[in-house]
Amino acid sequence: MTELRTLKVALLGCGNVGAQVARILIDDAGTLAPRTGARLELVGIAVRNLDAEREVDLPRDLFTTDAETLVKDADLVIELMGGIEPARSLILSAIQNGASVVTGNKALLAADGPALYEEADKAGVELSYEAAVAGAIPILRPIRDSLSGDRITRVLGIVNGTTNFILDQMDSTGAQFADALAEAQRLGYAEADPTADVEGHDAAAKAAILASLSFHTRFDLEHVYCEGITRVSAADMAAAKEAGFVIKLLAIAEKIGNGDGSEGVSVRVHPTLLPREHPLAAVRGAFNAVFVEAENAGELMFYGQGAGGTPTASAVLGDLVSAARRIVLGGPGRIESTTGHVPALPIDAATTSYYIGLDVADQPGVLAKIAQLFAEHGVSIEIMRQTIHRDADSNVESAELRIVTHRASEAALAATVEAVKGLDVINSVTSVLRVEGA
Amino acid sequence: MTELRTLKVALLGCGNVGAQVARILIDDAGTLAPRTGARLELVGIAVRNLDAEREVDLPRDLFTTDAETLVKDADLVIELMGGIEPARSLILSAIQNGASVVTGNKALLAADGPALYEEADKAGVELSYEAAVAGAIPILRPIRDSLSGDRITRVLGIVNGTTNFILDQMDSTGAQFADALAEAQRLGYAEADPTADVEGHDAAAKAAILASLSFHTRFDLEHVYCEGITRVSAADMAAAKEAGFVIKLLAIAEKIGNGDGSEGVSVRVHPTLLPREHPLAAVRGAFNAVFVEAENAGELMFYGQGAGGTPTASAVLGDLVSAARRIVLGGPGRIESTTGHVPALPIDAATTSYYIGLDVADQPGVLAKIAQLFAEHGVSIEIMRQTIHRDADSNVESAELRIVTHRASEAALAATVEAVKGLDVINSVTSVLRVEGA
Repeated sequence: MTELRTLKVALLGCGNVGAQVARILIDDAGTLAPRTGARLELVGIAVRNLDAEREVDLPRDLFTTDAETLVKDADLVIELMGGIEPARSLILSAIQNGASVVTGNKALLAADGPALYEEADKAGVELSYEAAVAGAIPILRPIRDSLSGDRITRVLGIVNGTTNFILDQMDSTGAQFADALAEAQRLGYAEADPTADVEGHDAAAKAAILASLSFHTRFDLEHVYCEGITRVSAADMAAAKEAGFVIKLLAIAEKIGNGDGSEGVSVRVHPTLLPREHPLAAVRGAFNAVFVEAENAGELMFYGQGAGGTPTASAVLGDLVSAARRIVLGGPGRIESTTGHVPALPIDAATTSYYIGLDVADQPGVLAKIAQLFAEHGVSIEIMRQTIHRDADSNVESAELRIVTHRASEAALAATVEAVKGLDVINSVTSVLRVEGA
Repeated sequence: MTELRTLKVALLGCGNVGAQVARILIDDAGTLAPRTGARLELVGIAVRNLDAEREVDLPRDLFTTDAETLVKDADLVIELMGGIEPARSLILSAIQNGASVVTGNKALLAADGPALYEEADKAGVELSYEAAVAGAIPILRPIRDSLSGDRITRVLGIVNGTTNFILDQMDSTGAQFADALAEAQRLGYAEADPTADVEGHDAAAKAAILASLSFHTRFDLEHVYCEGITRVSAADMAAAKEAGFVIKLLAIAEKIGNGDGSEGVSVRVHPTLLPREHPLAAVRGAFNAVFVEAENAGELMFYGQGAGGTPTASAVLGDLVSAARRIVLGGPGRIESTTGHVPALPIDAATTSYYIGLDVADQPGVLAKIAQLFAEHGVSIEIMRQTIHRDADSNVESAELRIVTHRASEAALAATVEAVKGLDVINSVTSVLRVEGA
């Protein structure tokens, strides 16, 4: 032990995750050292307020408000402040000083990752960020290393625990979105302002990161189509359930042939119907999972806790030990992962199956009219089911039509739905939801 | 592209997996090169019989029977021959010549891994073997790297597709073991001689590898308690199902406190009851999955195809590209993973819950007698359920008693079962099965 060198670790931020990282670095120093080949010495923790309450009892003398100075004296910098600035400037400063950086800052990576990766490459240091996607789940390293000899064709991820908790509540209790959200807030799974989660923005940042690594091309937020879960109703949930599906908010990145021999990648986030037998359908509560389809490996799934201080700290520490081993062993950084150059495709180029719910007039010939209209738009129907409801009091009949299509483009589907709305036999279009994994 | 260096790749063995590895190296050379930072040139394939039928059409001039010479001229050697010799000698020869080695040979690793790892460390080359456990699933690299800053407490793996297929058939159709095995053989999931699979030997080799990486200590086959699935009956399956469980063959490695402050690791393979809600319970057919519990990360699961030429080739290629990147970037090997020194524990030291089925006399006081006996042996009962059957013709009543215990040691349970057998009110002990994940 005594002959091991010491690497200085600076921690920026001491919230939920940061406090746990500090605790582990201190408590587990003895077991981390031999695994790493070096002692990892926590030399300081930069915070805004020295007197803030912390979840973990940490030595007072580690804290400082002077992040700039702390960063300049470290071999390894862990950035867990979140937000764009000063996180970006501090990371750049660390890289320029020759430190390797570990971050969990998905917003920064989605907004400005490419510039940071380039700086790290130039400086020959590592910039790693396993904690930015799906918390504790090792997903970025397996995509980058384990699947480096394969071709990923599609990634489907449940990467936001808040929305998965809400949708799971709606599915299991029949609750409306607003009630399930309130329950999630009460239990601490959703924030007071839940916008970033329920509108899909958090998942979109993760989708950009997953797509970039999976397809060896740099995608950022502007390439991601994003639709949240606020419009998913209890009726949608019930209809999906009856048809053997569950509704999940998925981050999707998939390679699509353009028909002319060229290829592109569709990156998107939206509520999605999944067959109940699909491995992702069993991901309950606030858990996360990423389902990867590759040409040779076939179907893979990675499952675990997507948030929380301690689980996310595990991912940060894994990156830290790996970066430290690299420093001990020598050798500059890693091979660039952006060797592919596939374009990002607009949402209109994506093809999925669709589930469409229609409130229709109970007249003869309605089904034929609608089927004809779908055919005219090139959208093939896989399943069509009509249910007649009779009001016991009024004796008035109403009909509900549920359609599952074969794979169709967003554009064709949108045109079909527009046309359907114009039919006189249609009272309303009650739901339009995408289906994956069928 | 033109300025990239070339690394020579030698392939030993051209069976199921080897043929797919060769195909991918040839067909995907263009996409692999930029990801690797070098051209990977397949310089030869060593086989026993030059004229054997291959699954894939490969250039004839690549084949040779002279493995020794082939190995001496390669930067990277892929060993997919299986068996102990000549695989071991060829791997040692490759390492001594400074080549990095990728292998999928679990039998060799379980029998003689430590000696090979040491040679690789001395020579400063990589010896990687992701394909040896759970086929296409990236599990060894995540354990080694992603969880390097965490403490794994337990690993539960479905790592043998043949037995999972058989147990899944028995669970879903009610078939007996022999019939499910015959079906698996008919479909190509089981070999003509299924011993290595159904007796748990294949899973035991994988358990030794998983335990070694998870607990930073070298375990080999002699440390693994092994019990196959041949004695699992349709009645066991039905009873498990009724009680809300499914039976899986699990490879288990878990850290256990010895009560005196010291710790050890129990490594074992046996049929195990899992609650139907457990993520591993949903792993159907020939799929594999590894469930990992770590102090900080919590529960993680890795799921995918555990066998098959193309999926396993994906894992081999991932190792190959990673080893090649290391050669390109420079830097010697990796940090030793055997920094822990926890002892392997005998099966008697393992504690699990147990499911016990008893055929008992239908008399007053039987439950009390049995409960008393469990208590005397220090085995705590969690659930006890009695079902009375009345034969309609004879009007004779028989009673079936099903007990689920709290965690108990193998030793305490064995003593309890022995004592139960001696009770006059017991007709027979119909099943004793371990329970995990409850």
